[in-house]
Amino acid sequence: MANRGAVLVAHGGGPTPVLNASLAGVVSEVHRRGEFSALYGARFGAKGLLAGDLIDLSSLDEATLERIAVAPGSVIGSSRYKVGEDDYERILDLCRRHDIHSLLYTGGNGSMETARRLHYAARDAGADLRVIGIPKTIDNDIPVTDHTPGYASCARFFAHAARDIGADNEALPSPVTVLEVLGRNVGWVVAGTVLARHVPDDPPHLVYLPEIPLGADRLCDDVMRVYDRLGRVVIAVCEGQKDEQGGWFGADLVTAPGARDQLPANMGHIIARTIWDRTGVRARAEKPGLLGRSCAPLASVVDRGESWQCGEAAVRAALEDRSGEMVSIRRVSTEPYHSEMELVSLDQVARTERPFPPEWVSPTRNDLQPEFIEWARPIVGEVAAHARL
Amino acid sequence: MANRGAVLVAHGGGPTPVLNASLAGVVSEVHRRGEFSALYGARFGAKGLLAGDLIDLSSLDEATLERIAVAPGSVIGSSRYKVGEDDYERILDLCRRHDIHSLLYTGGNGSMETARRLHYAARDAGADLRVIGIPKTIDNDIPVTDHTPGYASCARFFAHAARDIGADNEALPSPVTVLEVLGRNVGWVVAGTVLARHVPDDPPHLVYLPEIPLGADRLCDDVMRVYDRLGRVVIAVCEGQKDEQGGWFGADLVTAPGARDQLPANMGHIIARTIWDRTGVRARAEKPGLLGRSCAPLASVVDRGESWQCGEAAVRAALEDRSGEMVSIRRVSTEPYHSEMELVSLDQVARTERPFPPEWVSPTRNDLQPEFIEWARPIVGEVAAHARL
Repeated sequence: MANRGAVLVAHGGGPTPVLNASLAGVVSEVHRRGEFSALYGARFGAKGLLAGDLIDLSSLDEATLERIAVAPGSVIGSSRYKVGEDDYERILDLCRRHDIHSLLYTGGNGSMETARRLHYAARDAGADLRVIGIPKTIDNDIPVTDHTPGYASCARFFAHAARDIGADNEALPSPVTVLEVLGRNVGWVVAGTVLARHVPDDPPHLVYLPEIPLGADRLCDDVMRVYDRLGRVVIAVCEGQKDEQGGWFGADLVTAPGARDQLPANMGHIIARTIWDRTGVRARAEKPGLLGRSCAPLASVVDRGESWQCGEAAVRAALEDRSGEMVSIRRVSTEPYHSEMELVSLDQVARTERPFPPEWVSPTRNDLQPEFIEWARPIVGEVAAHARL
Repeated sequence: MANRGAVLVAHGGGPTPVLNASLAGVVSEVHRRGEFSALYGARFGAKGLLAGDLIDLSSLDEATLERIAVAPGSVIGSSRYKVGEDDYERILDLCRRHDIHSLLYTGGNGSMETARRLHYAARDAGADLRVIGIPKTIDNDIPVTDHTPGYASCARFFAHAARDIGADNEALPSPVTVLEVLGRNVGWVVAGTVLARHVPDDPPHLVYLPEIPLGADRLCDDVMRVYDRLGRVVIAVCEGQKDEQGGWFGADLVTAPGARDQLPANMGHIIARTIWDRTGVRARAEKPGLLGRSCAPLASVVDRGESWQCGEAAVRAALEDRSGEMVSIRRVSTEPYHSEMELVSLDQVARTERPFPPEWVSPTRNDLQPEFIEWARPIVGEVAAHARL
């Protein structure tokens, strides 16, 4: 079956705790099927594609694969390089030179758009190349798929963070703690922190989504309402929280020269300072940051398994001569949870951001509806309650 | 043996991932010995002692104890309240009223000083009360004891953080990442991040201790030296980093009104901004903060076991009619690691901070010597390398 040629896998964008699991799924399925002449990984994503920097993954053994599957980051490397109009021909040329007839592109919205354009470029050039997308983003903002691999693990990390910081806070009451959560534009991850709760008044007490503008007055009113009742407040907020003018929260509050361009790199702190300055109640912020997408021990088991399956499904799709499609997760049932991998056209998913459903936000605009929890719980997995007296 | 009366346990200061393990050790040993009439916990430490707010821990079953032992925070609560001269008589009175003849005080330097003074106050008042200290602090700054319960788990968390953020950073190279680590005055925890390394050039690439003043020039020189060679830099720094004038780092750099009093709540960010502003190399900061002392899944197994044993040893000490002493960990051997609990006078440990040994700091002042790693590794436990190609 020499006409299958070689297969190439590339990663784009920020890693997740389970990105390597999808790579392991690709390698495992390629080995199992035995129909490809070689398996390459692009070193540092698009950069490797353009520089011809490939790594031969054909000979990885199963024990190494299992270890790779639980490692954060990307063992082949990734890149934020934005593939331009002139780059597609170079990538097609690379594929010709290495007898590559299947390219598996792993990433978020931007990478899916690259995969889509590469698919059309190949078609237009009459190249014998299948392009399949493998979804990957903690942001969960790719449409059609029930969720994206990487999301549930990142949400699980921050739910653990809310729970554990909450336990510390309950033991040694501290007025206000702001937990800054990854996510610039969409609230999927910050919403997931509600899975930390087990009994009423468990943290997080306030959850803000970046889609919903937040003014300092509303923030402080919310905080004081909780503080007056409980004496402590744990807030979950995104690094990309917006204000009521559509800018970053704090853009109209921070007047110090040079401070405005530090938004949103320091959002939790700015929110904590705003609360402290306006209410007089002491507030501090924590920002686990990149740890939220690299802390492998707290990854979701379901997420890691699905990420692996997405890798396998992409290989199968290439073997079925599909192209211009992305592996998508279809939720078959929630209770018990069951999903299946299917294929959707990249035309359907690229260039479109999946918004957080407004109906899953509480009317108070600082919490989530039970429907969200029901949806999220099976994929995020258990965030067990700590023992209490 | 009714003359044993009741035993009371109290927690002081910030929780650790293994503080509850020492409580479980106390409860377990009290149950096992069966010589006390009751076992109480002070609700929220000194506050509970003064308000007479006690919780009966006599009937905790073994299954609950096992669950408590792995929970972060403190199930009985803690406090930073500084016990004053007038408070000792009130505490003695509480003990008289509840037939308490043994008080086990768990905490760091401040709590050991409280325990010491309480011991003398009891003696001076002719009260039949034994006061035993149980060490607990992530800061590892209590003298005599080889290390303090809580330290190794906190160090382990931040070593994991350096490793995982490093894996992310290696996969998607980002110029400079600053990891802000817990610790205001002593460098034990930030030093522990070096346990993240497995091969040359593994992160953290630069480690700063708060005991060693850091100027912006030296910082930027260090950063550029690593950046020019590797293209990426992971820095571990304390929340309490000092500058060359003895103030907080950034105190002479931050000129914005209101910004100076945000030191050191935002140290990592200030260091990142200093690097970016002065070198033009992009820098970002992460601050897991309280998560470093509450993330139970990453706690050190040795640390948790020793914390439990310290609780047990305190009960035994009270049964031996000891008072005015603290349980101390003696390292019997490093390879294989073995420790024993012994007692030291509170006079020896209270009011004294244990400094980080200057000879364990590298001559470059941005790294640690192998002797520190040898000392720390058995108590912190393995921070396994991730799979790489």
